[in-house]
Amino acid sequence: MLYFENDYSEGAHPKVLEALTKTNYESLSGYGSDEYCERAKAKIKKACGCDDAEVYFLVGGTQTNQIVIDTMLQPYEGVVAAATGHVNVHEAGAIEFTGHKVLTVPEHDGKMHAEELRDFIETFYNDEAHEHMVFPGMVYISHPTEYGTLYTKEELIKISDVCKQFEIPLFLDGARLGYGVMAKDTNIDIPTIAKYCDVFYIGGTKVGALCGEAVVFTKNNMPKHFTTRVKQHGALLAKGRLLGIQFDTLFTDDLYFKIAKNAIDTAEVLKKGLADKGYKFYLDSPTNQQFIVLENDKLEKLAKGVRYSFWEKYDDTHTVIRFATSWATKMEDVEALIDLL
Amino acid sequence: MLYFENDYSEGAHPKVLEALTKTNYESLSGYGSDEYCERAKAKIKKACGCDDAEVYFLVGGTQTNQIVIDTMLQPYEGVVAAATGHVNVHEAGAIEFTGHKVLTVPEHDGKMHAEELRDFIETFYNDEAHEHMVFPGMVYISHPTEYGTLYTKEELIKISDVCKQFEIPLFLDGARLGYGVMAKDTNIDIPTIAKYCDVFYIGGTKVGALCGEAVVFTKNNMPKHFTTRVKQHGALLAKGRLLGIQFDTLFTDDLYFKIAKNAIDTAEVLKKGLADKGYKFYLDSPTNQQFIVLENDKLEKLAKGVRYSFWEKYDDTHTVIRFATSWATKMEDVEALIDLL
Amino acid sequence: MLYFENDYSEGAHPKVLEALTKTNYESLSGYGSDEYCERAKAKIKKACGCDDAEVYFLVGGTQTNQIVIDTMLQPYEGVVAAATGHVNVHEAGAIEFTGHKVLTVPEHDGKMHAEELRDFIETFYNDEAHEHMVFPGMVYISHPTEYGTLYTKEELIKISDVCKQFEIPLFLDGARLGYGVMAKDTNIDIPTIAKYCDVFYIGGTKVGALCGEAVVFTKNNMPKHFTTRVKQHGALLAKGRLLGIQFDTLFTDDLYFKIAKNAIDTAEVLKKGLADKGYKFYLDSPTNQQFIVLENDKLEKLAKGVRYSFWEKYDDTHTVIRFATSWATKMEDVEALIDLL
Amino acid sequence: MLYFENDYSEGAHPKVLEALTKTNYESLSGYGSDEYCERAKAKIKKACGCDDAEVYFLVGGTQTNQIVIDTMLQPYEGVVAAATGHVNVHEAGAIEFTGHKVLTVPEHDGKMHAEELRDFIETFYNDEAHEHMVFPGMVYISHPTEYGTLYTKEELIKISDVCKQFEIPLFLDGARLGYGVMAKDTNIDIPTIAKYCDVFYIGGTKVGALCGEAVVFTKNNMPKHFTTRVKQHGALLAKGRLLGIQFDTLFTDDLYFKIAKNAIDTAEVLKKGLADKGYKFYLDSPTNQQFIVLENDKLEKLAKGVRYSFWEKYDDTHTVIRFATSWATKMEDVEALIDLL
Repeated sequence: MLYFENDYSEGAHPKVLEALTKTNYESLSGYGSDEYCERAKAKIKKACGCDDAEVYFLVGGTQTNQIVIDTMLQPYEGVVAAATGHVNVHEAGAIEFTGHKVLTVPEHDGKMHAEELRDFIETFYNDEAHEHMVFPGMVYISHPTEYGTLYTKEELIKISDVCKQFEIPLFLDGARLGYGVMAKDTNIDIPTIAKYCDVFYIGGTKVGALCGEAVVFTKNNMPKHFTTRVKQHGALLAKGRLLGIQFDTLFTDDLYFKIAKNAIDTAEVLKKGLADKGYKFYLDSPTNQQFIVLENDKLEKLAKGVRYSFWEKYDDTHTVIRFATSWATKMEDVEALIDLL
Repeated sequence: MLYFENDYSEGAHPKVLEALTKTNYESLSGYGSDEYCERAKAKIKKACGCDDAEVYFLVGGTQTNQIVIDTMLQPYEGVVAAATGHVNVHEAGAIEFTGHKVLTVPEHDGKMHAEELRDFIETFYNDEAHEHMVFPGMVYISHPTEYGTLYTKEELIKISDVCKQFEIPLFLDGARLGYGVMAKDTNIDIPTIAKYCDVFYIGGTKVGALCGEAVVFTKNNMPKHFTTRVKQHGALLAKGRLLGIQFDTLFTDDLYFKIAKNAIDTAEVLKKGLADKGYKFYLDSPTNQQFIVLENDKLEKLAKGVRYSFWEKYDDTHTVIRFATSWATKMEDVEALIDLL
Repeated sequence: MLYFENDYSEGAHPKVLEALTKTNYESLSGYGSDEYCERAKAKIKKACGCDDAEVYFLVGGTQTNQIVIDTMLQPYEGVVAAATGHVNVHEAGAIEFTGHKVLTVPEHDGKMHAEELRDFIETFYNDEAHEHMVFPGMVYISHPTEYGTLYTKEELIKISDVCKQFEIPLFLDGARLGYGVMAKDTNIDIPTIAKYCDVFYIGGTKVGALCGEAVVFTKNNMPKHFTTRVKQHGALLAKGRLLGIQFDTLFTDDLYFKIAKNAIDTAEVLKKGLADKGYKFYLDSPTNQQFIVLENDKLEKLAKGVRYSFWEKYDDTHTVIRFATSWATKMEDVEALIDLL
Repeated sequence: MLYFENDYSEGAHPKVLEALTKTNYESLSGYGSDEYCERAKAKIKKACGCDDAEVYFLVGGTQTNQIVIDTMLQPYEGVVAAATGHVNVHEAGAIEFTGHKVLTVPEHDGKMHAEELRDFIETFYNDEAHEHMVFPGMVYISHPTEYGTLYTKEELIKISDVCKQFEIPLFLDGARLGYGVMAKDTNIDIPTIAKYCDVFYIGGTKVGALCGEAVVFTKNNMPKHFTTRVKQHGALLAKGRLLGIQFDTLFTDDLYFKIAKNAIDTAEVLKKGLADKGYKFYLDSPTNQQFIVLENDKLEKLAKGVRYSFWEKYDDTHTVIRFATSWATKMEDVEALIDLL
């Protein structure tokens, strides 16, 4: 059976496991105060080109989205996201659980348009009754998006400009950030993100770690008593070393980027193979998630040889499915998949 | 100055004030356990044609929407509303404050379509990842809607059927219920609502009371320890008599319906006047709220003679405004308004 | 039957009802933006001797405690109260409902001691693990307390000093404030409270109003977008006039104080009568609530002639019961009660 | 430097790391649906002597306490704990964050007494105003407690009886459960806990795992849609394998119990050494946490040779400190510590 169901079906990059094993018997202080966390933070700050960034490690993506949004918003504020944004659709209401509304703007291949965002916020402030409504207090974008697409630098700057105009933070969900910055032809790297976003995270879970997301606050804006708030959300890890050691490894000798590139390389081959065989793409994704539109009667047969994700109904006779590559995908499996298709 | 800004700009119907004054020095027990509350409940149950209904009095509309939704939903559930539903737009996030997402379906003149509702819920359950999403746990409709429109009995039954199919309650926001049931040509009365809805409320604030909404649970489904939960929401009134006496008065000799009819009668005259003068209606409303599309440069002049509500931008040169009549509107003021237009 | 069960069993002072009736047909804007609210606020500010106070009207006591505490605390903070404080015992968890812990210090006849408060907060900050605990972010006192007792000015200043030392606000629950300031021999008046507290409220529900509490922020510290937050809590009253007109009346010609004095005068007579007849007081209360310790076998007989409150078990054979007077208590009823005892 | 600061300062037992490494490239499904999770659950059910238990893996202790309490309580209920219970003191308000009050009973060496618990709940139900209070909806105990003490089987049964009497669940926090069941002279093993508790968890973080707690629902009482609720709390791990593989290893060949025994063996030697040298114990702990009362002026010198935990102030000149052993403690380090003392 070939596995292209998602980008979190294997464990961790071997170097991550080696580092955990090597440091195993060192007695380290808890809750992220150990030296590996410190080292990992320093390396991440460097990778961000942002010396005074503040870095905090959390365990998973939903948790990170929930905590960043809840702690950076005022209680009367909501977060603005594209309608397809992960926080709007696939977090089981984790944002609303903390009391905040997700406000939506239209999506275009998973992205929001700066103009529509500005229009949304201006309409809010122009409404005489806006005191009776939820204030737009933050903008959430994912990069890559839930559809594998990427913002251009120009698009990111425009969205950032809207946020500056209304003095609200821009938050970038980078659960798959490695795959975003290693895509071909992107003009967004991590320092660019650090420059234009107020907070973002570098996903580990989907890019070579057992678990872990590195949140980066770029504007001296980490919420006060952040550790207490993380604990209040039930998210403070006793053995913070587990996250520190992993990110220290991933950000040594560019490991994070090198292994992310594997997902792109294999995705590119898969994409070409799909195109050559005449498959219809749902949209053009430059990253590790590839979406195709398939006749419903072919779904079952395909499922015998490969695990993929059902994405959504396309029409009465077609379905959108997703193939995902990752840091762990072997080129031979891609080739086998193309043969199978 | 003429006042058509809303339907809550006067105090209460004189008989309500008289009753409060007459009973003022009676020593009554607190928290809604007094005899006036009991009497009012009995009269409301009769008006609902539903002997085993459970009635509970709350102070205001947002409060009622928040409490009913929060107490009837499971924690992992959200409420489905039309995109223009009051709970989605104008409650300052009061629903999300209690941890629940508002899930939206398209609106059509303020109403939802049963087909789109069914499709929304079916799509949810067909999604393999629906465990990662918010469960649709209740349907919210308003009647009249935020645009003054009314469901037909057939539409209500269809929506009720969808709710029954998925075993979730149907909640009707009746903040302006009096104006709904007294509209011309409607085939929905309160017993019909009690039959097809699991919970609804009869608005007092906008129909002759100083404050107060009467929540009616129609299926022996009042949430357990409801008084405790109301108090937990900060909504338990010490002098419950204030609500009981008002509703006892409003439901004596059909006062509620008689005074609601005044809003309809005056709105009908206004509507005809607007039509005669060639104003463009934003939509056709059979109740006490009338929406017209006005050139922006006429807004200011109009504001000198009458208070109305800005509703929303129509296009770059036009605005939707609202005139509202109420139980207190005088026909002579309507005539003066028509002259002014 | 005589009624001494509580201080909210009658309606409102007749002048309050007269004012509601007189203004009934005036068309006023909603949500507390009307002229009566403005007038009432001005009069209250004057009564507080605090020109730049900000006044906000809410409907009930639990609601007020919940909203003031939730909006003035940071999310990682709790409120410190005496163990018997209303917010710790009798609010059905309304404080925790908004995510905040009630931290407790010992009670002494319903009051906290400044020394124990300081010790509690110092212990917190001296704890190396305090990041894993709830920060003390506000101090809550009630005056009169739940046991009818009063702080002295010296005690209030000491508590205020602790709050200043740790830069946290002092909040005074004045649900029965009128009865506190009109007690004999108290050296605390409203301007004193306004001077030493950061926020407090003047209770209307228990002192002559149908409903309503006037929150006073004394240090330019009303939380940002307070109206939105009140609405988010489900507590924004459409007809804000209901509160404005009542407080405007109560603070005209010192009505609030005059009617509060009635509760004190009648309580003093009752207290003397109880003492003369040899009843054992549970504690010495200078206000409108009087607590006596009664043999259990006398409870039932007494209940035939007078409604009182069971307060708590004293020991296996005795119970603490409460008699409450109010603005509405008639001296003849007090005399009848004494005869009965 | 010797390390006795806590029981989570090393990584994981080597066999745990080996298993993670060995399975690393297996493609497994996410969110705890993999075969290792299944296997681990089966082994844990067997260890519990409870075939129809339901097991769920979570990442950390605060998270587990928060989720179990929030999902098993009704919204109007609180959890009853000893005053020193972890959920009352050291969770940064994580319980209140989900809207629930922690109700407290007195503590005796970290434990609650069944009689005081019964009295607390009976007093609640006997109070005529209990509708205005938080309902006691669950009992929380920790075993070992925060002071290293253990309940006897007789004590556990008595508490369980109170819970049954009032039909509320008994929840046992087993963050250090391995150290509890391996203590000398305890008559409580895991099957006993499974029999008398409605839900409990087997701590991994402090007993040989990198992270992870295994929640066991023993009475077919896992809350409905539990995965969705876990995700809503931000606690659903994408790579559920990380937890499954660890617990599968720990519950193979009794590894969990064998390594827990090391903490007890080393603690016993330490305890004897402390006694021989005349140190004063704060209380008698039979598990891996040992508390002694030390003169303040000796604290600093001691800190030069060993890392320990400050626990609490004892009096003005003495402090309670804690030494903790663990699965990873070497006997030679214990001996070196005794020499040092």
